[in-house]
Amino acid sequence: MVRRSNGSRKARQKTSSVSQLDWRSVENPYPPMEVLSADQIDAICDTAFRILEDVGMDILHDGAKSLLRKAGADVDPSGDRVRFDRELINEAMKHAPSQVTLHARNPNHTLTIGGNRIAFGSVASAPNSSDIIDGRRSGNQKDYRDFLRLGQSLNIVHFFGGYPVEPIDLPPATRHLDCIGDFATLTDKVYHAYSLGRERIVDALEITRLAFDCSQEALAEKTRIFTIINTSSPLRLDGVMIEGAFEMARHNQLCVITPFTLSGAMSPVTIAGALAQQHAEALAGMALLQIHSPGCPVAYGGFTSNVDMKTGAPAFGTPENARAALIGGQLARRVGVPYRSSNVNASNCVDAQATYESQMSTWAALMGHANFLMHGAGWLEGGLCASFEKMVIDAEMLQSLSEFLRPLQVDEGSLGLEAVKDVGPGGHFFGTAHTLERYETAFYTPMVSDWNNFENWQDRGSKNATQRAHDISRQLLKDYQTPPMDVARAEAISDFIARRKSEGGVAEG
Amino acid sequence: MVRRSNGSRKARQKTSSVSQLDWRSVENPYPPMEVLSADQIDAICDTAFRILEDVGMDILHDGAKSLLRKAGADVDPSGDRVRFDRELINEAMKHAPSQVTLHARNPNHTLTIGGNRIAFGSVASAPNSSDIIDGRRSGNQKDYRDFLRLGQSLNIVHFFGGYPVEPIDLPPATRHLDCIGDFATLTDKVYHAYSLGRERIVDALEITRLAFDCSQEALAEKTRIFTIINTSSPLRLDGVMIEGAFEMARHNQLCVITPFTLSGAMSPVTIAGALAQQHAEALAGMALLQIHSPGCPVAYGGFTSNVDMKTGAPAFGTPENARAALIGGQLARRVGVPYRSSNVNASNCVDAQATYESQMSTWAALMGHANFLMHGAGWLEGGLCASFEKMVIDAEMLQSLSEFLRPLQVDEGSLGLEAVKDVGPGGHFFGTAHTLERYETAFYTPMVSDWNNFENWQDRGSKNATQRAHDISRQLLKDYQTPPMDVARAEAISDFIARRKSEGGVAEG
Repeated sequence: MVRRSNGSRKARQKTSSVSQLDWRSVENPYPPMEVLSADQIDAICDTAFRILEDVGMDILHDGAKSLLRKAGADVDPSGDRVRFDRELINEAMKHAPSQVTLHARNPNHTLTIGGNRIAFGSVASAPNSSDIIDGRRSGNQKDYRDFLRLGQSLNIVHFFGGYPVEPIDLPPATRHLDCIGDFATLTDKVYHAYSLGRERIVDALEITRLAFDCSQEALAEKTRIFTIINTSSPLRLDGVMIEGAFEMARHNQLCVITPFTLSGAMSPVTIAGALAQQHAEALAGMALLQIHSPGCPVAYGGFTSNVDMKTGAPAFGTPENARAALIGGQLARRVGVPYRSSNVNASNCVDAQATYESQMSTWAALMGHANFLMHGAGWLEGGLCASFEKMVIDAEMLQSLSEFLRPLQVDEGSLGLEAVKDVGPGGHFFGTAHTLERYETAFYTPMVSDWNNFENWQDRGSKNATQRAHDISRQLLKDYQTPPMDVARAEAISDFIARRKSEGGVAEG
Repeated sequence: MVRRSNGSRKARQKTSSVSQLDWRSVENPYPPMEVLSADQIDAICDTAFRILEDVGMDILHDGAKSLLRKAGADVDPSGDRVRFDRELINEAMKHAPSQVTLHARNPNHTLTIGGNRIAFGSVASAPNSSDIIDGRRSGNQKDYRDFLRLGQSLNIVHFFGGYPVEPIDLPPATRHLDCIGDFATLTDKVYHAYSLGRERIVDALEITRLAFDCSQEALAEKTRIFTIINTSSPLRLDGVMIEGAFEMARHNQLCVITPFTLSGAMSPVTIAGALAQQHAEALAGMALLQIHSPGCPVAYGGFTSNVDMKTGAPAFGTPENARAALIGGQLARRVGVPYRSSNVNASNCVDAQATYESQMSTWAALMGHANFLMHGAGWLEGGLCASFEKMVIDAEMLQSLSEFLRPLQVDEGSLGLEAVKDVGPGGHFFGTAHTLERYETAFYTPMVSDWNNFENWQDRGSKNATQRAHDISRQLLKDYQTPPMDVARAEAISDFIARRKSEGGVAEG
């Protein structure tokens, strides 16, 4: 049987009228950018340990405290404060794997997280959604599903970082059932489950098991889903988060520990101080999971940015945010675990600000060898809104960056001496054999960028990039095709969701 | 006498209601990003030499051909073709200085070009200008002057890269007199003179001499102005360009040789091939000037981007453009001269495309250790339009990048262990002593970015970044103050311009 290769150098997806790059795993062939010296990284690591030793963290979960006590931590007998020796942390972290494979239902969409690879995720957890025609609205199931369809359709979106928008029109006790069911059926990429208690994770694992059609035992043999565990900075880990994380770790699923260290508010006003606290919180969270389930996959999340000191508003894509993202990579490499960063901005619309803030954070993530880019496509308003147009514009930027990272060919053919001889001074290269052999695949073809001259652009309606991105998002949604799934599996998922709904969903609230 | 320091860490300019960073020289403390291996750079350099040896260049200037013949080049006796041995090029380039100081009328605005420094220039040479209220129009003197005032007011704009917009309402024979006169009086920063024949350069040098109030001899003791010499790619150097460049070199003024190698049109469709040709053309131009005036300041210009192979339209800020900008830095460092790159985009309005393409090219320039960023602020439409709003948005991006490049403080105070102890788990950092001591200068304060939440942003008129940039450009123009100049000097300049106008300006056309 002759099959069309899915991995050809520049072949375009043929299933939609929108031209985009094929799915591929992105690698950064260049060494990571080191903003701090080894001594400076030592100083931050040492401060992090001193925070854990001298101040400690509040761990709001009895089981976790008891585990940590047994492991040798100093646990306050009448409260939640836990102090950790650096030896305890280092010992626990010896078990943490340096990379993890996240298996997608479609094996072509399976991701390896670690080393010099970077995977791009969708926007996650926005309470609002928007597009430029219908405006901004509260998150709802229709938009939730459309974001899933759009993220599924965009090849450069490697995974779903959480619910792109929170469908608040669905009841909280069963919302996760609908949402995870949609992840499992409307997409075939890796997705996230929220660690809001144990029950939601149990349900997410069961839906995932049904989607993969595997046994309970086989489920834990591979990592298939992930969760983001945010610490309640400063220095607190909430009980419901721990509850969910334990269930994930027990099943060999990925937990990304991301301290919420906005400098000046939840962490020191200095970036070095905010990073020391970030490092302390990330280490405590990851070590706790290694003590609970040695060898379970974990990743180091860096989210340090600053707040506007005049108003307290969070700021993203700032110089401080970019440096923190780069240094976060240095800290994660010290620990030897995969590194998560983000594509973030604080703009209220899809404009130049949204774009330059996003580029600042994404370049920093890339140069810092982030392995896992949360909010890669669609984030707006510091996370308070998911935008359809921003998702497409981010996809264009991520495509462009991924092409930028491709090693350049330098050989006799590409050096083109014969072509230069052929054309000579004053000629032009349009018609030469060298050009004709290569022109179709020579350069990146953009999705959103319009290179028409001003007059042609005007004749076509003077649409700016955001307006064009809107059109592309509509076209992709129109062209969307549900990824194939065995009918029996789909029914099993739908039956499970129906049963759990009839039981009332989660009891824990 | 007590003077307010001009260089304090984050002090804001007090002369305008627009908050911006103080003027400062920007250094990149990190090693340059090396996209190609040393072997690959060797291969490109070798191909460049083979182009110069086997194909040669058309040098459309008799004096230049005669100079090159005497220096040992193989000059076609009946035409313009000149072939250069690599030994001739290498020998000539031994004289080229590795860095150059560009003296501004205001000594605080003097620039050192080379090493790990980067200077940012204004948009240059656009035939049209635009703002979002009055729209797009042909270049004119009013806009020309306003761009000079705006560039003078923006501290992050270090120099003027050419006429920001071409004032085509002024007669060509005397346009340069008005324009250079305006540079010398409306600004006190370094500026560019066009090498369109010898006379215009002679006039520019005389106006500059009058502005500095120095003797003819003293004029050539310091480098004060610069010119961009574009080759007519492929492989041609025009006579009028050479004529002007010789006059510049004779007076120890900076010539930046920038091949116009758009890949697929004026150079091979492969980036390696386009760069080999760029390198050949840049070397030939710089070597010619070293043969003419050994030791004269020259710089290596990299402008390689690609065209859209479907339409032939030039594209900028593409993955290919970014890689070429980075590799151009590697090639310039091989030669040991300063490196010029650009902030470029092909968008027709100040939107997300203009921004992400600009960011791609600027990050590449920065990571590639460009020393001289042409079109740093205000470029649109692939150079066909200068935009007031884009100038302000670019200034914001350049400010942000310059802050990003500041080395991070890591010491006991910034590590903030005491602050973390002070606040403890679950607290917040707003009111601690550590924060109160630092909050005013802790973070970059943006000019354009709006970090209000959606509701507040809406209440204030839902202005996007481009609209806010418009307001800022108007405010800066309102606040603009002509930099002080001795009355006698100003009169001498104005008298000279009047005399030269009465003579009819340049005869050469």
